[in-house]
Formats: sequence, C-alpha cells, structure tokens
Amino acid sequence: MTGKRLLLNLFEMGTPTHITHGLWRLPGNDRHRYTDIAYWQELAVALEEGGFDAVFLADVVGAYDVFRGGFDDALREGLQLPNIDPLLVIPVMAAVTKRLGFGVTFSTSYEPPFAFARRMSTLDHLTRGRVGWNVVTSYLPNAARSFGLTEEIPHDERYAIAAEYLDVVYKLWEGSWDDDAVQRDAARGVYTDPAKVRRIDHVGPRFSVAGPHLSEPGPQRTPVIFQATASPVGIALAAQHAELVFTIQWGATVHATVQAFRDAAVAAGRERDSLKVLVQSAVFVAGTEAEARAKLETYRAFRSEIGLFVHTSTVFDPTQHAPSTIVADAVAAEGGDLGAVRPLLRGLTVAEYTAAVDEAWTEEFLAVGDPEQVADRIEHWLDVDDVDGINLRQYHSFDTVRDFARYVTPVLRRRGRLPEADDAEGVTLRERLFGRGPRLPDTHPARRYRGGAHLG
Amino acid sequence: MTGKRLLLNLFEMGTPTHITHGLWRLPGNDRHRYTDIAYWQELAVALEEGGFDAVFLADVVGAYDVFRGGFDDALREGLQLPNIDPLLVIPVMAAVTKRLGFGVTFSTSYEPPFAFARRMSTLDHLTRGRVGWNVVTSYLPNAARSFGLTEEIPHDERYAIAAEYLDVVYKLWEGSWDDDAVQRDAARGVYTDPAKVRRIDHVGPRFSVAGPHLSEPGPQRTPVIFQATASPVGIALAAQHAELVFTIQWGATVHATVQAFRDAAVAAGRERDSLKVLVQSAVFVAGTEAEARAKLETYRAFRSEIGLFVHTSTVFDPTQHAPSTIVADAVAAEGGDLGAVRPLLRGLTVAEYTAAVDEAWTEEFLAVGDPEQVADRIEHWLDVDDVDGINLRQYHSFDTVRDFARYVTPVLRRRGRLPEADDAEGVTLRERLFGRGPRLPDTHPARRYRGGAHLG
Repeated sequence: MTGKRLLLNLFEMGTPTHITHGLWRLPGNDRHRYTDIAYWQELAVALEEGGFDAVFLADVVGAYDVFRGGFDDALREGLQLPNIDPLLVIPVMAAVTKRLGFGVTFSTSYEPPFAFARRMSTLDHLTRGRVGWNVVTSYLPNAARSFGLTEEIPHDERYAIAAEYLDVVYKLWEGSWDDDAVQRDAARGVYTDPAKVRRIDHVGPRFSVAGPHLSEPGPQRTPVIFQATASPVGIALAAQHAELVFTIQWGATVHATVQAFRDAAVAAGRERDSLKVLVQSAVFVAGTEAEARAKLETYRAFRSEIGLFVHTSTVFDPTQHAPSTIVADAVAAEGGDLGAVRPLLRGLTVAEYTAAVDEAWTEEFLAVGDPEQVADRIEHWLDVDDVDGINLRQYHSFDTVRDFARYVTPVLRRRGRLPEADDAEGVTLRERLFGRGPRLPDTHPARRYRGGAHLG
Repeated sequence: MTGKRLLLNLFEMGTPTHITHGLWRLPGNDRHRYTDIAYWQELAVALEEGGFDAVFLADVVGAYDVFRGGFDDALREGLQLPNIDPLLVIPVMAAVTKRLGFGVTFSTSYEPPFAFARRMSTLDHLTRGRVGWNVVTSYLPNAARSFGLTEEIPHDERYAIAAEYLDVVYKLWEGSWDDDAVQRDAARGVYTDPAKVRRIDHVGPRFSVAGPHLSEPGPQRTPVIFQATASPVGIALAAQHAELVFTIQWGATVHATVQAFRDAAVAAGRERDSLKVLVQSAVFVAGTEAEARAKLETYRAFRSEIGLFVHTSTVFDPTQHAPSTIVADAVAAEGGDLGAVRPLLRGLTVAEYTAAVDEAWTEEFLAVGDPEQVADRIEHWLDVDDVDGINLRQYHSFDTVRDFARYVTPVLRRRGRLPEADDAEGVTLRERLFGRGPRLPDTHPARRYRGGAHLG
C-alpha cells in the first residue's frame, strides 16, 4: 500500500543564523554567502533536483533586543541580523528552476497593502505561479520602533489589522481584473479591455485603497497563503485563510493539533483537505546510523546556547528569573506581551521553558539514522501524526539539503511518498500542493470578490 | 583628439507602454513579455554586450486617470498599466551580467523608509554594487488614493517629505554599520562586532526610525542617487543629492540647463563633476540613412496620439480647453497642481503644449541616420550641449537596443566615446560613472553620518 505523499519544504532565511544557533561556524557552511546570487541559485537547483516542493523564507524587520537588554548578542550570533529582503531572492531562484515553489514571509503590520499586492503579483508572474505568502503580524518591539511606532502593536490588534489587510489584497488580487481583461489586440489597439478592470474602493477602519490593482492577474492570482501560528486568534485566522500551516510541536500531541486545524477549517466552511499542515522537523541522515549520529554530535558541538536565548527571548529574558518562576509570571514582571509566547509554553517554569525551546536537538520531529530509518520516521509522522509534510530545519548550507536529496529522497520515492523526478513544467505551487488550481477554490473567502462582486 | 566618454543608458519600464505610445503593436515587439524573466535576461545580456552602462527602470504606483476623467484609455493603451514592481527584475538581470548597472525608480511619498533601505541594500549586495535609485515623489492623484490619502500630497510638501526620507535612509546606509563591523570570526564566535553597529534613532516631523539598519553594508552602501527633475525645488534637491540627473528638453537651450545643474551642485558644496546630466534621446539607426528614415516612418505610423494625451495629462485634460488657452490657466480651471507641469510648458498655449509634449518624434535629441551620422549627432550633444550621456528611448524590444549595439556602439568605441568591450568585473556603478568610489565622495551630504556621527 502506498500512503499519502510527503510535502517537502526547506526552512531558510537570508541571514547568517536563522534557527540553528551557532552553526554558521561549522566548517564548510556557506551561510555567510547569503548576500550572493550564486548562493540562492545553488540552493534552488539542489532543492529542485532533490525533490523538494518549496523553500519557505522566514523574515524579520527588527532586531532581537530583549535578552540582556540590547541587540549585541544578536549581532555576535548573526541571529537574523544582518539580513536581506527575502522577496528579492525569489526571482533569481525562479530563473534557474521550473518546479520549485517559494514561500515568503511578509508582515501585515507596517507596510501598505497596495504596494505589497503588486510585489506578490509580480512574483506570481515571474515564478509562473510558484509563489506563496506566509502571513505574519511581526512580534519584535524593535521593529515597531523602526516603523514610526513607540511600541509593538498589541497582539490582538495586530491580528485585526491582518484581517483587514487580507481583505484589501484579496480585493486587489481577485476582484480588480477579470480573467479576460488583457486582450493584447494589436489590430484594434486594445491592450486591456477597460470594461473588465475596476477600482476596489476599499474603505475600512485601518486602510483606504482605491485601486485599480496595478498588475494583471498572474497564474495563481492570490499566492498560496501560508501561516505559522499557535495563538487562538492565529488559529482562527488560519482556519479561514491559510492553505498551508507551519507548526512547531513541543511534547503536545501533534495529531490533536492537526485535527484542530482541520476541524476549524471545516467550521469556517472550507474542505477538510483545504489546509495542509507541515511540522518543523530535523533530519540527520547518512549511509549508516552511526555516521548520522556522529554528524548530529558534531553539529551539536557547534550549537550556541546564547543564540538560542537571544532568539527565544522576545518578550522576557529567562536569565533574569529564578528557574522555578512560571513563564507567564516572568513575562508579567517584565511588562511583556504574553500573546507573543506560545500558549503551550506559558505554564512552564523558566527552567522547563529553556529546555523546551531547545527544539533543535530534542524535539519530537527529529529523525536520525540511515536512509531507511529516516524514511520510516517520516512515514510515521505522515500516517500516525497525520501531518501533510515537513518544514526541514537547515543546519548546514548546503549539506542539509544534499544529504536529504542523496539519502532520503530516493527511498521516499521508492515508497511512493514523493513523486518520481519529472520534467513537468507549468505546474503552479497551488496545483503541486493540492492537485487542483491554479486559482483558489470557491470555498476560500478571497473568491467572493471575483468579477468585482462585493467590492467597495 | 578624443572627447569625453558617453554615458549610455536605456530607459525602460515593466509595462506594455512606457513612453512610446502605441508601439507595443509594432510587429515583433516583445513588450507583452514584460512579466517574463526571460524578457529581462535577454534585455540585460543585449545591453551589456552592446556597451550600455545601465538600464533605468521607471515606475508609477497609480493609474493615469485625468484624461477623459478615468483610466479607460490608459488600459486600452497599456499605458504604464498593467505594470510590475521594478525592484524584482533587477536580481534576474544581475544574475546574467557582470558590468551592467541598474537604476530603479522608487517614490518617497508612500512607503516607509526603513523597509526601502533594506531593499536597496539587498540589491546593492545582489548586484555587487551595481544599483542606483531614482528618487521620485510621485505625481498621480490615483496613487495617493491607493495609499490611504484622499488626494495627492501638494508638490512642495512631497519634496519636504523626500528630504527627510533621504536623511533617514542615509543614516541607515552610511551611519548604522561601520565598514569593519562584520567579522565572521568563527573561532571567537563573533559574526558581527556589536561595538561597530548602532541605532540611528531618527526622530523628525515625518518619520521616527530607531534602527539599527537590518543589512550589512553593500559595496556602494548608498546606491547611486538618480533624479529626473525640472521644478525649482526638484533642482535644489538634485543639487544637494543627485549623482545622475535625467532631463528632457523641449526647445530650451540644454547647455544652459546643464550649466545650471553643475552650478547648483557647486553652490551646494559639491564638485562640478559630481553630478552627471543625461538627456532623454531617440535614436533611429540602420546601415543607411534611407533605411533609418524608413524605420522612423514605420514606427511613427504606429504611434498613438491618445496614448500621448493620457500620459501627459496628469493634472489637466487638454482636450477640454480651447487651443489658445494658456496651460497654467487650464490647470487652474481644473483645480490641478501646476507644480506637476514642467515650468517650460506652463506658459504655452494648449495647442503648443500638445505639440511640444510629442517629444518622441520632434525633440531636439533625435538622431536619425547611418552609424556615422548618429555618432556625429551624439558627439555634438556631448561636446556642444555639454551633456554627459543619453537615456535612450526604447521604441521596440529589443530592436532599439540591438540596432544601437550593432551600428552605433562600434563607431563610438572607435572614436573613443565608449570604452572598448572588456571583461572587467567587480566594478560598481558609481565607479563606472565617476572613475572613483565605490562609496560616496566626502562632499555628499550622506557622508556626514559615517562612523555614526550626527545621528539621533
């Protein structure tokens, strides 16, 4: 029997240290080449040849400056600082690939939706429908202060902004231009039929946007909507809007979480399979289990605990509290925003918290072994945990991807978990993920604007 | 004797019709491929092989909707609508070239400077120092209404915003990170030395930006500053900030204009040669003069007068006024912003105006002929008019570039007006333009922030 197919995604960011703290120091690691076009093109080719469906680019627009009261440690660690704009590396990866998808993180909190809508339409064109958008609301106080605010927007208000922001860009992507608007009729001198293009005239509490959308519709119109969420308001938003959800699990029963997402989507009027759930996972693989374990130990020796603390301390500094203090109390004592702490972590002690966030090495979704062992583990996640795929942590550029491609991909292909290598072109990311598309399904809330309905 | 070198630039935009109205209908014109990566890569390779210094990408973030009271004609003409975000095609052009420079238009009126500063730093890295920024303040009322405003910001206030915006991004680009901040010292575990990175803590009437800048310094730090201007406040801004100015001349003595720019730069404390002046020009060239004239006539037959009117009618509709009406009076009658009309045009009659704006075919900077004739004309512009280069109008993609490369470039090289083809790499745009760099000269106002001086 052949089980369900794995959705295979790499987690990446244009910065020296994304989530594998200290590992930029690993011999042969090319992390420092993140400013170089060749880095992104080598990565993209390795991913496509290795059977990956997509690369998911994280982003932040601020510095981690809570731990020890400043960003000095973030700088020493190269922890998401310096960084580059992830939107700008997608075109160069698209130029050397035919099938790889691209998910890019962009926050709804600080920049105008009208300009962002055009950027994503441009990427949908340039990639020929291979782009997704990871909707985030930002969580770094430093970012807020670089966009004219004195402090971070409160969590729930950020989500209210996000909801209206989504509404605006949906109107632009789905409602402003009809499918047959662009005619390119040289004989009649009509590039676009004006009867099939319209303003959106959105007027809401937070945004006023006249339109028309500046770009003609790309293959997908709306990019595939990604979300990485854990808070209740985030899950509610994901149930309505997300097509792909990234989740991180610490000891909770992932099966229940996955079902909760699927149930919430159904409750929002969408199909049960309209929302794919990917877990963040760590894979160490080699020809033998012993080699894989040795690689894990080598990597572990390079890890930076300081980097981990800088990264996870966005609203409180765990080194400033007794190990037995409850996290929620520590956050309150510092006046931090508890909404920014994943609910599962709020009731832990500071000691439990610091152990738990060290997910790089201890998490449930860790696979270490030879190719068959790793494939067994991944099949367990798919069949028992009911996840749809993995978001692979990248410890080393490009060994993480090349090891997976060399050792695991052939086994998963043999087992029917990954499609055979093919030269199919012209398949959009949405079609690759769902086997339908390239446009959103009728049950998605963005589709109500098609043909200019419900605008204004 | 060898005269001064020509700076050779192509004027382009990601849209069906940029400034050559109606010509998307020309047989074999590839304008409709503007959403395709291959279009941009073919163009970039043709430019680099043809000895071009740079391609300058125009942009608007709104629809032309004054003429006939709506954007229907803009849509029919493909007149700068639909369009794509120009920032996103620069990386794909950079990926296939080594020397070509890229100028990109971005408005200071609607988007936060902190995010834009990172985008340009990212491009400076990805292009290895081959990027320039054309600073504009926008002029389309429709754009304002898509960014939350009820009407366009008045002309002089737009320039006041631009001045503070420049100050913010200069602080980020020049002052936030020292040259030796990034150390990549794996042995000590120091990616960046925190003593050499700082917030900018800008607090002004229009922007509050804490920083630090998110990106490490690229080869040029600040991109080459371009400006296309004609208004007095624009010239004042250019005299302080611009390194390259684009100008369009209608019947005025260009020599005097060029001197006025150079004088203003000196008055602002900068070197006389710190500001290069490029004129927009039109070149029709073939093996013989007869063939070149025939090509001009063919192209002229495809031009669209409606497209021209849509494009030039940004604050008043010339078809709604008697031909003898003075332009300034027509603008006043419609309640338009006279600041958006080039000063030279304000005193003309509407009839004179409509003839004058038809610069595509009648302008002073038109060269039609065989290769030697065209080269003679370009040398005249360089030596008599004292311009530093041309911004070439593109009538046909890619015949305009290929004709120039095939016929004119070899003659200009032989005459010492263009450098011989070379394989030099690692030369930044600023070095290519000025023979010095890659950083700004000491006399540029951005340089006062180096090392973190004058911040806050």
